[in-house]
Amino acid sequence: MPVSKLKPADIQAAHERIAHAIRRTPVMIAPEINEMLGLELFFKCEQLQHTGSFKLRGATHAVSLLPDDCPGVATHSSGNHGAALARAARDRGLPAHVVMPENAVGFKVDAVRRYGGEVHFCAPNQQAREAGLAEWVEQGFEPVPPYDDDRIIAGQGTCAMELLEQVDDLDLVIAPVGGGGLLAGTALAVMAHAGQVEVFGAEPSGADDTARSLATGSRVDDHHPDTIADGLRALVGLRNLGIIQDQVRSVVTVSDARIVDAMELAWAGLKQLVEPSGAVALAAVMDHADAWRGKRVGVILSGGNLDTTPLLAHWR
Amino acid sequence: MPVSKLKPADIQAAHERIAHAIRRTPVMIAPEINEMLGLELFFKCEQLQHTGSFKLRGATHAVSLLPDDCPGVATHSSGNHGAALARAARDRGLPAHVVMPENAVGFKVDAVRRYGGEVHFCAPNQQAREAGLAEWVEQGFEPVPPYDDDRIIAGQGTCAMELLEQVDDLDLVIAPVGGGGLLAGTALAVMAHAGQVEVFGAEPSGADDTARSLATGSRVDDHHPDTIADGLRALVGLRNLGIIQDQVRSVVTVSDARIVDAMELAWAGLKQLVEPSGAVALAAVMDHADAWRGKRVGVILSGGNLDTTPLLAHWR
Repeated sequence: MPVSKLKPADIQAAHERIAHAIRRTPVMIAPEINEMLGLELFFKCEQLQHTGSFKLRGATHAVSLLPDDCPGVATHSSGNHGAALARAARDRGLPAHVVMPENAVGFKVDAVRRYGGEVHFCAPNQQAREAGLAEWVEQGFEPVPPYDDDRIIAGQGTCAMELLEQVDDLDLVIAPVGGGGLLAGTALAVMAHAGQVEVFGAEPSGADDTARSLATGSRVDDHHPDTIADGLRALVGLRNLGIIQDQVRSVVTVSDARIVDAMELAWAGLKQLVEPSGAVALAAVMDHADAWRGKRVGVILSGGNLDTTPLLAHWR
Repeated sequence: MPVSKLKPADIQAAHERIAHAIRRTPVMIAPEINEMLGLELFFKCEQLQHTGSFKLRGATHAVSLLPDDCPGVATHSSGNHGAALARAARDRGLPAHVVMPENAVGFKVDAVRRYGGEVHFCAPNQQAREAGLAEWVEQGFEPVPPYDDDRIIAGQGTCAMELLEQVDDLDLVIAPVGGGGLLAGTALAVMAHAGQVEVFGAEPSGADDTARSLATGSRVDDHHPDTIADGLRALVGLRNLGIIQDQVRSVVTVSDARIVDAMELAWAGLKQLVEPSGAVALAAVMDHADAWRGKRVGVILSGGNLDTTPLLAHWR
């Protein structure tokens, strides 16, 4: 079973490698949301990261470690990782091949292409995606997986590292969990930080593989995700799960209805267009506001990529 | 005919009076929008102002000038000014009476109440609104009009004043125009600034009273607004028009369809939930991108207050 070799200091090293290419995203506060929920929230705004999600951090870090003679990168993705990898590769002047299921939504395909990625469609199943990727790997392109990879985990951890630099005396930090790259990286960043900060994960109850894996002590293999949080449908990675088991206080689950409540709070209260996956950590805060009353909570808003076309149809 | 007595230096004085109560809102940039349009845009983000719009600046300024024995304030409003005035009054410990048409949308009524304003409903016409306001003024409450008022104009000008401090070497600044408080204040702020900055106004073609007034040389009296930009339906104020005639290079009009295009660009490209009125300046930039190619343009995103309920119905 693959185990991560990452140490907390690796997050700082990753940050030094990628700082030139990523945004140090702002932390927002909203007194009215604090008043409503009875705690002090600090929103780390990765919807304002280049490419619209935290995924650029890990992708940029993985690409920064490639040798100069690397012919390019490849991945399969239906979402934010593909666009992030395309942009990270372009910044090093490398081609990126992104295998996407033929039912991928148009605006996500467009995003990959906007950053110069070459899209290759495949049948919409895991075997076809892996077979499609294997073709490019055989041709010498470096595979960059979306989360179960130490380079990626270290890169994603730079988000919480910045948050801990930006806000003093946090009591806890909460991050969403899909494949677990962001949450595992967050846990390592917190370990590197001198302080008493607890780390929580937030997972859709319709994709609760991480919570169930923690409960049973090993990764579950029955995983049939059914949630609006399309960025969190992946099965948690083994490296990721190992770190989460050791370092995360708890992974809590939230309903899809609560995720929409959290989107509404972010949209109306912060004026930030956060996607469903990006609002999952806030949804968990809403569920635990009484238990965490008065605490200083860092909330990672992980992304803001959603198709605005149906929303604007309201006015057209 | 009422004429403004404001001088450019009044904007700086207003800023000193209100700085403790308002947010110095950030300026955002989006390389992808710049690349798409072929110019350099700097977005002044008043959707991130407390109360979700620039209106708090003028309201706070007007309230700051009241004598200590003032019993409170009153206005009529169907929109952002009412909420802003309620908040500004609350910050001085004063009551605010806001006369609202009985067909005002629920979320705007809620906003006034959230900031402690007392809402009084009236029939949805101008006479009833003014009669409703007169009742409170007779009782000694200070009327604070939404735009045709030097205190208000000076306060709204602080937005462009900050923008000019935040960004060097702008070629032009563009602001939306409804009643003209923001645009007139912007023109005064630019006059106070050492530089060669041109000021433009942007107005919905369905509420083009300012553009027509400039063309004819005096304020038009036929005004039947029909636009989705609900914050820009007011007839331009006389004080405001005087300043605009003297100091604004041009007021350009934009279609409702283009306003929705601009909202989409702000939502997708900036992840900022901007309301229709808030996107009107960007809509004008889209129309004039070729004419302004290569220029450094300050764009005031004036607000982000819209009813998110129908948007989120998509997920519920």
